[in-house]
Amino acid sequence: MYMNYKEALEALRRLDREYRHLTHVLALLQWDQETYLPKDGVEDRSEQLAMLGGMAHGHLIDPGVGKYLREAGVTEENPAGDERLSGEDRDFLRVFSREYYKAVKLPPDFVRYAAKTEGLSQAAWAEARQKSDFSFFMPHLSAVVEIAKKRAQYWGYGDRAYDGLLDIYEPGMTEGDVRAIFDPLKIRLKELAERVTAKGPRPSVFSGFAYDSGAQHQFSLKLMEYLGFDTKRGRLDTSAHPFTTTLGACDVRITTRYLAENPLSGIFSTIHETGHAFYELGMSGSHRGTCLGDGCSMGIHESQSRLWENVIGRGTAFWTGLFPLLRSYFPDQLGSISLDAFIREANRVALSPIRIEADELTYSLHIIVRFDLERRLFSGGLSVEQLPHAWNTLMKELLNVEVKNDKEGVLQDVHWSMGSFGYFPSYALGNLYGLQLWKKLCADIPQVDDHIAQGKFDTIREWLNQAVYRWGRRLRPEELLTRATGQGLKADSFMEYLEKKYTKIYEL
Amino acid sequence: MYMNYKEALEALRRLDREYRHLTHVLALLQWDQETYLPKDGVEDRSEQLAMLGGMAHGHLIDPGVGKYLREAGVTEENPAGDERLSGEDRDFLRVFSREYYKAVKLPPDFVRYAAKTEGLSQAAWAEARQKSDFSFFMPHLSAVVEIAKKRAQYWGYGDRAYDGLLDIYEPGMTEGDVRAIFDPLKIRLKELAERVTAKGPRPSVFSGFAYDSGAQHQFSLKLMEYLGFDTKRGRLDTSAHPFTTTLGACDVRITTRYLAENPLSGIFSTIHETGHAFYELGMSGSHRGTCLGDGCSMGIHESQSRLWENVIGRGTAFWTGLFPLLRSYFPDQLGSISLDAFIREANRVALSPIRIEADELTYSLHIIVRFDLERRLFSGGLSVEQLPHAWNTLMKELLNVEVKNDKEGVLQDVHWSMGSFGYFPSYALGNLYGLQLWKKLCADIPQVDDHIAQGKFDTIREWLNQAVYRWGRRLRPEELLTRATGQGLKADSFMEYLEKKYTKIYEL
Repeated sequence: MYMNYKEALEALRRLDREYRHLTHVLALLQWDQETYLPKDGVEDRSEQLAMLGGMAHGHLIDPGVGKYLREAGVTEENPAGDERLSGEDRDFLRVFSREYYKAVKLPPDFVRYAAKTEGLSQAAWAEARQKSDFSFFMPHLSAVVEIAKKRAQYWGYGDRAYDGLLDIYEPGMTEGDVRAIFDPLKIRLKELAERVTAKGPRPSVFSGFAYDSGAQHQFSLKLMEYLGFDTKRGRLDTSAHPFTTTLGACDVRITTRYLAENPLSGIFSTIHETGHAFYELGMSGSHRGTCLGDGCSMGIHESQSRLWENVIGRGTAFWTGLFPLLRSYFPDQLGSISLDAFIREANRVALSPIRIEADELTYSLHIIVRFDLERRLFSGGLSVEQLPHAWNTLMKELLNVEVKNDKEGVLQDVHWSMGSFGYFPSYALGNLYGLQLWKKLCADIPQVDDHIAQGKFDTIREWLNQAVYRWGRRLRPEELLTRATGQGLKADSFMEYLEKKYTKIYEL
Repeated sequence: MYMNYKEALEALRRLDREYRHLTHVLALLQWDQETYLPKDGVEDRSEQLAMLGGMAHGHLIDPGVGKYLREAGVTEENPAGDERLSGEDRDFLRVFSREYYKAVKLPPDFVRYAAKTEGLSQAAWAEARQKSDFSFFMPHLSAVVEIAKKRAQYWGYGDRAYDGLLDIYEPGMTEGDVRAIFDPLKIRLKELAERVTAKGPRPSVFSGFAYDSGAQHQFSLKLMEYLGFDTKRGRLDTSAHPFTTTLGACDVRITTRYLAENPLSGIFSTIHETGHAFYELGMSGSHRGTCLGDGCSMGIHESQSRLWENVIGRGTAFWTGLFPLLRSYFPDQLGSISLDAFIREANRVALSPIRIEADELTYSLHIIVRFDLERRLFSGGLSVEQLPHAWNTLMKELLNVEVKNDKEGVLQDVHWSMGSFGYFPSYALGNLYGLQLWKKLCADIPQVDDHIAQGKFDTIREWLNQAVYRWGRRLRPEELLTRATGQGLKADSFMEYLEKKYTKIYEL
């Protein structure tokens, strides 16, 4: 049947809507698994996830999709389709066809083999980590690296497989682009970290107290409200690892976790995930529930969570307004702690072999270690067997940390076991994107610190909405950043921010 | 491709497994909607439910299913398939093909029209109920009654449409069977209710106190544990209307609700739903997650919840062991209330126009009112227009209750608005099934009251497991009951139980 380009577009919009519904149902299955699933329910849940996942994939690569794309004027060379369409429609086609081509280029047998191998690898990683024995995990990791190389080849990135993997998380960014930023950054970070640690370690002011998790949860709920989270469109629960997930156009859920000995972990997880949720909920209404209703890139998404967590949430202005409330939840524990001492605690630098325990200053160094190793894994300069030694050497070199064993070293993160190579850089890029945006925001809203101290966040959110949220995936990361700040990605704003902050806190 | 009957069976078992996965995913979407869904998430959720529901239906009526059924020797006359198959396999085919035929006989256009009309009708009912105005709901109800008649016709029950509808909930039971039981039952119930109410009303001993919902929830969790609920295979949450739902072979969840002024509502909802959950979790492992892993009938399912709630849960033996614990949660409110007064409260008879507020004695009369009206609606003896008047007349006649308005009368229940005719009788049949089983259980375990007083429920559960749980849908209700008790369904055990109980409590 003949169909004109407009009809083809409508057909694709319907298919996309159905595909998003399936991905949201998958997200609910996963959210429930992390929050409320009874222990023995996990076996059926994996089967449900596998089945729905297969159905969603089948929906995306349905032969009808390719036909409609052609009729809408889409080719790989012209992914935005017919030029008579509006800018938003063309962005829709560009983003949707990108997902389609990524999916359809992988042969079904390969997809099945990859899913199975990566599943087994993740299980082997968990066991190896528990035993702190890399050799047990090694053959699985080798297989997963080969799969990642193959995947990049199918997508058509030729020899430079790592560029193909980076592109999943940071569209358009190459290994060369990342090195050009990370290489000078690591020198500046290392130098600053050395100046801070030369001041000697600071003990935690929280030690010796217990913080009831019920009270922590009540405070976290208040905190979300204080930040302006709309609970008609989302909720807060707890899980082993905090995350944000989108289950529908008006249903974005976050999780946090509470440590009995330290309330900061729960507080900053809640703020971090609230930052992700603001982005998801801030996207233009016509994008939410479509392929455009997603983050522009992993790095840009991470920039939003880190802005709220670190730049806003760990600042003196923020706690000027909020510390009395926190104290009212924990009068015995915090009654004698001053606002200044609390801020120092929230920004304490403590060298750790573990990424997720790292402070704002050393965190990006942990990322650079991983980036350096994974790019060398894919260029052939490093074998899987050499990984633990190379890991420990880099940790010593960049962070001056002695890694005691594989569990605290190369086995600490789940990402590689699942085949997620090229993902780590986003975390550090998020810091850089975030501070570059923040510097411009501060120039546009000079009284921002007063607003924060008053608990008035709407001006900040409105600025972020204009610059970031509303676009969804319409803009590519570089485009979004240049539009908002007038220049491409640089590490300068981030480093200036860190230097100023730690000079003050550590009296450098 | 030629396939032998064994291969066809295997193919059907795979399809069935996939179909159950989809129904479990649907159950999660609904569970979440009733428990945790943020307010604005409801619009996308309806679309997700409609889409997944359509996919599940499509899975069941796939042309492959009919082909495999034929190859397994199944016809409508021989629904259990090839005689060389085992008894369990033949039961599988009988139950699976029953679902298949019920689904495939309805034309797709009719299914869509019915879903849409029943959806609108439910919304109109909610509005009419709020306005207490039946006339607003009337045209919708007429359309829904016509759809139900048509549905029964498609299934092939000819003129006696109501038999076709009853068969959904109580396989094999006809209008005549139900009347043969309900007609004498209503006389005996009415007579007993009159003797009890002649004693004058008893005020509640709970009035004037508030019961914190957090404490009620903590007690409900303890209560489930006390009954022997395995929290590795299920959980307790709260919702506006309590329910039990199965989300996987080892994932059965219940909900309850807490009233601030009276802890009994939450307590007995928790026990009731725990009874349902015991049934779902007690089914043989090889049945769970297949079409055999469901209740034998609605009435048998309801017999299990009501046994635990009323017969066990409202008895003196049960609270002998548990009342001190309940008191420890509410020392100020219950400190001065004796066990006897508490038991009288839990079994207080209070005439109400509202079914869900009715006590154990008058509850079945509310059901008989509905049964009488719906069977006359389908036989043509009663028009939709005449319903409110007929309702009020019957309520006066059977319960001596004056219905003040439609909201308290014909508009109180959601069932008819959704087209669920033939569903109500199951509630009262559950009482009868339950007491007939219980009488035999007491004969087999003479020391049952001691076990209950000691909080030792494993002998009871093991008996119910042998007689009811493990079978799933392998036995038809009549068959299950006869196998367990030696006779078909009678109201005698139920009436003996009520007479004994209320004679004691009301000193008749």
